[in-house]
Amino acid sequence: MLLSFSWTKFFYSPLGDGGMSVKVISPATVANVVCGFDILGFALNEPCDELTLEISDEPGIHIINNDEYNLPTEAEKNVSGAALLALLEETADVKGFTLISKKNIKPGSGIGSSAASAAGAVVAANHLLNNRYRKEDLVRFAMFGEKVASGVKHADNIAPCIYGGVTLIRSIFPLDIVPIDAPPLHVTVVHPQIEVRTADARQILKHQVLLKDAIKQWGNIAGLVAGFIKGDYNLIGRSLEDYIIEPVRSILIPGFDEVKKRSKEAGALGGGISGSGPSIFMLSKDAATAMCVEAAMKEVFEQIGVAYHTYVTTINTEGVKIVTTD
Amino acid sequence: MLLSFSWTKFFYSPLGDGGMSVKVISPATVANVVCGFDILGFALNEPCDELTLEISDEPGIHIINNDEYNLPTEAEKNVSGAALLALLEETADVKGFTLISKKNIKPGSGIGSSAASAAGAVVAANHLLNNRYRKEDLVRFAMFGEKVASGVKHADNIAPCIYGGVTLIRSIFPLDIVPIDAPPLHVTVVHPQIEVRTADARQILKHQVLLKDAIKQWGNIAGLVAGFIKGDYNLIGRSLEDYIIEPVRSILIPGFDEVKKRSKEAGALGGGISGSGPSIFMLSKDAATAMCVEAAMKEVFEQIGVAYHTYVTTINTEGVKIVTTD
Repeated sequence: MLLSFSWTKFFYSPLGDGGMSVKVISPATVANVVCGFDILGFALNEPCDELTLEISDEPGIHIINNDEYNLPTEAEKNVSGAALLALLEETADVKGFTLISKKNIKPGSGIGSSAASAAGAVVAANHLLNNRYRKEDLVRFAMFGEKVASGVKHADNIAPCIYGGVTLIRSIFPLDIVPIDAPPLHVTVVHPQIEVRTADARQILKHQVLLKDAIKQWGNIAGLVAGFIKGDYNLIGRSLEDYIIEPVRSILIPGFDEVKKRSKEAGALGGGISGSGPSIFMLSKDAATAMCVEAAMKEVFEQIGVAYHTYVTTINTEGVKIVTTD
Repeated sequence: MLLSFSWTKFFYSPLGDGGMSVKVISPATVANVVCGFDILGFALNEPCDELTLEISDEPGIHIINNDEYNLPTEAEKNVSGAALLALLEETADVKGFTLISKKNIKPGSGIGSSAASAAGAVVAANHLLNNRYRKEDLVRFAMFGEKVASGVKHADNIAPCIYGGVTLIRSIFPLDIVPIDAPPLHVTVVHPQIEVRTADARQILKHQVLLKDAIKQWGNIAGLVAGFIKGDYNLIGRSLEDYIIEPVRSILIPGFDEVKKRSKEAGALGGGISGSGPSIFMLSKDAATAMCVEAAMKEVFEQIGVAYHTYVTTINTEGVKIVTTD
């Protein structure tokens, strides 16, 4: 299939014209984090996308997809492309880029697939530009990719993808990103193979919430942030409650309540919907517990007959990583 | 006036019947803390109430007010009394207490006058009972005092009054109090001499809030908690924004917007309504700035012709303090 594509030469020897290229791996991320809707996220050590980027003499963004997802190759409609176009707008001395993207994070999984594409592309570009941009700028560029993916310029996947670790987006306009220290945490993710579109998941939310629920929510986010920074696992667990979003969105995910219940029985500190779903994540204090949680998740989806994929991983503290430079 | 009161003998030699007595000073507190409505508070080094307590052989709580406020002396209607009654309920080996209260924190000022009465009384009682109760229990007892004062069992003044420092009330039912480390902070408080009843200030709040405003609010409370724990003054300042409560309640306080504007111009990190008002507090990084903020506050209330009182103080890190024991 790829052989019929006019960029084939780039696929086989894509950046072999003497220009400098860079390869990055760009991690999956968990956004929202239960009580941190729209403001909190963290990066995972797996899965990761692989992106290879080269500065091009041809104007615009040339995209080669080296995977099975048939994502758009027109820059304006492609998540990485839109992010790179935003960067190009402010980069007068560069005409264009050539990008090869190999996605391992399935689009629509709820673990930041679009953020990995957008963030990976701009971090790679910045490396080729001798890191002339600050991380805040890269987040700003990458948010244009999120807009292509979901219609909303949110940063709660982008920021942890670029910064690594747990990040708070205190404010989106103006952008204010606060890295949050966290103790070692093991993350179990289950991705039921159903589709929940981010746009749909946003649409079912109520525009108004009860003040008394909002108070509980900000008590919990305050507790969660304190728990992360203090390294207080028990407080992290107690704070992982969502009174606003989860009750509405969880109905879109078959097995959600059972996964949550069984995961906690297996020893998870807590967890909930990853991003806008359908993936569900659970945090655990140690690897053995995270494996037990995985077993519990598998059992639930086996029982209800929904195909799934699981990851048992840890929090990625470095974000998008440069792996090779030619 | 007090001479005509049957407890006069206690006033002049109040606890002179050989029983052990304890004197405590109980600090004013700032609750709500801008974006932390109902969940955050901190204690001040001044003003403080003085309470003297003795275990009594007579059943019930006998209250002597040694100040000008003519507060009720019936235990059920008195803030300290209601808190002590709650403690007595669980204290089978004690029949009653005699309390002498000297309030320096004006009731209705918005800086935790009722909390100081309730918390001071139960901390004093606990001292006489060889500290048999945990701080969490004392908060629980003292909340009965808050219910007498405002009809609501809130803990965001009580908790910092008992624990000292900045405290988060992550959850009220079940009670979950989280002490939050904070860097040295200077606090300027202005108390305009007008009345804002806590019950009225609660009544004007809307029961529903916009999700988009709630998201901003929980971004800010997360930022504020992170700022406190990291000792990041700039982040503390950026996070001190309230999109939910202040826009509604500030209309009850003449000069509020001007005080806020002028205080920030004078160098304050930020601040807002203390509790449900009418006091306004501002945080500063150093004492000199806190004094400039005081001058700015004074100017505003001089200009609009509203009587006021100011305090320039710091965060009290120890809470209710035992000062003498006979």
